[in-house]
Amino acid sequence: MSVTAPLGFEAAGIAAGIKSSGAPDLALVVNRGPSQAAAAVFTSNRAQANPIIWSKQVIGDGTVAAIVLNSGGANCFTGSQGFQVTHRTAEAVASALEVSAGDVLVCSTGLIGDQLDGDVLAAGVLTATAALSAEGGDDAARAIMTTDSVPKTAVVRGGADGAGWSIGGIAKGAGMLAPGLATMLVVITTDAVLESAALDTALRAATRVTFDRLDSDGCMSTNDQVTLLASGASGVVPDTAEFTAALTAVCAELALKLQADAEGASHNIAIEVVGAASEDDAVEVGRSVARNNLFKAAIFGNDPNWGRVLAAIGTTTAAFDPYNVDVSMNGVRVCHAGEPDQPRDLVDLSPRDTHVLIDLQSGPASATIFTNDLTHDYVHENSAYAS
Amino acid sequence: MSVTAPLGFEAAGIAAGIKSSGAPDLALVVNRGPSQAAAAVFTSNRAQANPIIWSKQVIGDGTVAAIVLNSGGANCFTGSQGFQVTHRTAEAVASALEVSAGDVLVCSTGLIGDQLDGDVLAAGVLTATAALSAEGGDDAARAIMTTDSVPKTAVVRGGADGAGWSIGGIAKGAGMLAPGLATMLVVITTDAVLESAALDTALRAATRVTFDRLDSDGCMSTNDQVTLLASGASGVVPDTAEFTAALTAVCAELALKLQADAEGASHNIAIEVVGAASEDDAVEVGRSVARNNLFKAAIFGNDPNWGRVLAAIGTTTAAFDPYNVDVSMNGVRVCHAGEPDQPRDLVDLSPRDTHVLIDLQSGPASATIFTNDLTHDYVHENSAYAS
Repeated sequence: MSVTAPLGFEAAGIAAGIKSSGAPDLALVVNRGPSQAAAAVFTSNRAQANPIIWSKQVIGDGTVAAIVLNSGGANCFTGSQGFQVTHRTAEAVASALEVSAGDVLVCSTGLIGDQLDGDVLAAGVLTATAALSAEGGDDAARAIMTTDSVPKTAVVRGGADGAGWSIGGIAKGAGMLAPGLATMLVVITTDAVLESAALDTALRAATRVTFDRLDSDGCMSTNDQVTLLASGASGVVPDTAEFTAALTAVCAELALKLQADAEGASHNIAIEVVGAASEDDAVEVGRSVARNNLFKAAIFGNDPNWGRVLAAIGTTTAAFDPYNVDVSMNGVRVCHAGEPDQPRDLVDLSPRDTHVLIDLQSGPASATIFTNDLTHDYVHENSAYAS
Repeated sequence: MSVTAPLGFEAAGIAAGIKSSGAPDLALVVNRGPSQAAAAVFTSNRAQANPIIWSKQVIGDGTVAAIVLNSGGANCFTGSQGFQVTHRTAEAVASALEVSAGDVLVCSTGLIGDQLDGDVLAAGVLTATAALSAEGGDDAARAIMTTDSVPKTAVVRGGADGAGWSIGGIAKGAGMLAPGLATMLVVITTDAVLESAALDTALRAATRVTFDRLDSDGCMSTNDQVTLLASGASGVVPDTAEFTAALTAVCAELALKLQADAEGASHNIAIEVVGAASEDDAVEVGRSVARNNLFKAAIFGNDPNWGRVLAAIGTTTAAFDPYNVDVSMNGVRVCHAGEPDQPRDLVDLSPRDTHVLIDLQSGPASATIFTNDLTHDYVHENSAYAS
């Protein structure tokens, strides 16, 4: 059910003909109210796609009636022609739903630098509008897939008895996964009663510790957007802390599903940094390892090459003594105080889930960065994507 | 002839038994004077190997009698035992040559985290000393190889008639190639008459625009060192500008040989950034592309995916308008002012040498970063290195 699990939402996912394969490629999620509060976070990449430029304007007043998403083309670096296609798509949704185009978010994903066909999108919007349904969330999840092998959805129920309100979400993303502020395409809905300012605060708190800590391949997208829509249809005003915790759980579940489906990956790697002087230090240290190709290739080869972990963190400005760091892999401490500890042969890296623990011995802060290994299949998929 | 091309130097490269393969693994370069001036630059990685810690002390007074280098082990994160092995190696050279251990540089390269055998190194030093020869430069070049497929050497002759003085060099390095201040193991010799301060100035000027602009895989080593030794044996005091230009030529030749032999690479990629507001901006922009795995995998697949170039440079803080950038690949301008220009099908990426030209339209500065593609063979070599 995903985004249609909360009350007040309808969704559809259809094949508009953008993808030459004939696969579903256009999703529509509509908030029927009574409230249409919304918040969104966007990629921090300065290279931003046309739908990002459009959606940043739409979200300004905190009111969103609908969001339309297409796969099969990113509509990025397509100039004024590309922007007109985004604008026309929003107008098509507005006309079909009898809402203002200024309340319609647009998201696109696919190859950068190719023009989308505005006629195809406009016709697709009509087909999707006709297909809108309170059970359409899973169809929408499928329609935003690109190199994803599975649709990603999540639902959490909240409130005193677990039935007062709910949150549902869909996500796409399998490559170019290194969000700056947001990531990939994610739509989250809730029927809780919340104003847009409260949604914005909760969404930023949730993405900061979930999508922002996913760094599959170090490559930041031009089209990332995470949107949160609230219908208020449950009539329940949630406890702020409980709502933020539930929203964080939905974001974390979707982020881990993105990691698990990362292009060509054979390991899901959690890099847990403890003993840091600050949370920022822990994130910087974890990310330096997540972006080190030699470390990532070693994990692919089931090689517990902890020297590459220390070589990576030595490039950071975090506060620690490189010669007083402990490194454990899957429970075996292979480096203690900057010297070899347990034999590396004791480490079993054959499971897909891999845990690297780095103790900086410098303070109370910690953070975990989620990444993937560097594999033959990653190279293959990304050397052949455009062709 | 490499490091023994200039007058006043002897060298040797022998198999000490550090590598289980029996391949050459210990090199010795001796400066017979009359001068023993020297300069060196080191990795800026905070994680530094024991030989780096030692050599930084030795270079302090600008006098170096000899440099000993081993492959087969990095002697990094090996604690006090590892430092004692470095110290003992320097003492063995000092004893054999009747010089001060405080004038002996030590370099190591190989796997991080394994102890070297001090007895094997000390015996190897004696063998190498007995093998010293004024024709030994090429043997030394071979003895420092790890995953290198070929030895790397260079010679440039300077002076008014091209015979007054000369510069020779050897280098090793095929992975973990992303120098901060220096890179890999490089020994350069000259018989020009220069004090250590002048050598230091010339060396930093040369490495800044050569080794520092090589970024094969974004991974900075713990053992990088570039050393310049001057014997003064030519009796010629060179023109400073001419000497720096010749030294830069030697460094550039060695850097390009490192790029050409990078692990598993199938393309040598020059990323030329022009129209930058500052040289620092040009370097930052070029490096962001060099470190983008999606771009590097696309080049491996002969895919002129210029969207990945723009997505990469959008993550930088350099001064430019992302929507007013031109990108050319091997002479075909595929992006103009942030929009598609010539069809990408016109780009032929089948040659090994690949040229990416990025015009930021923001000023007069430029820089070129040299990198490689991301290939199946890179992943293979680096997933199996320790085993």
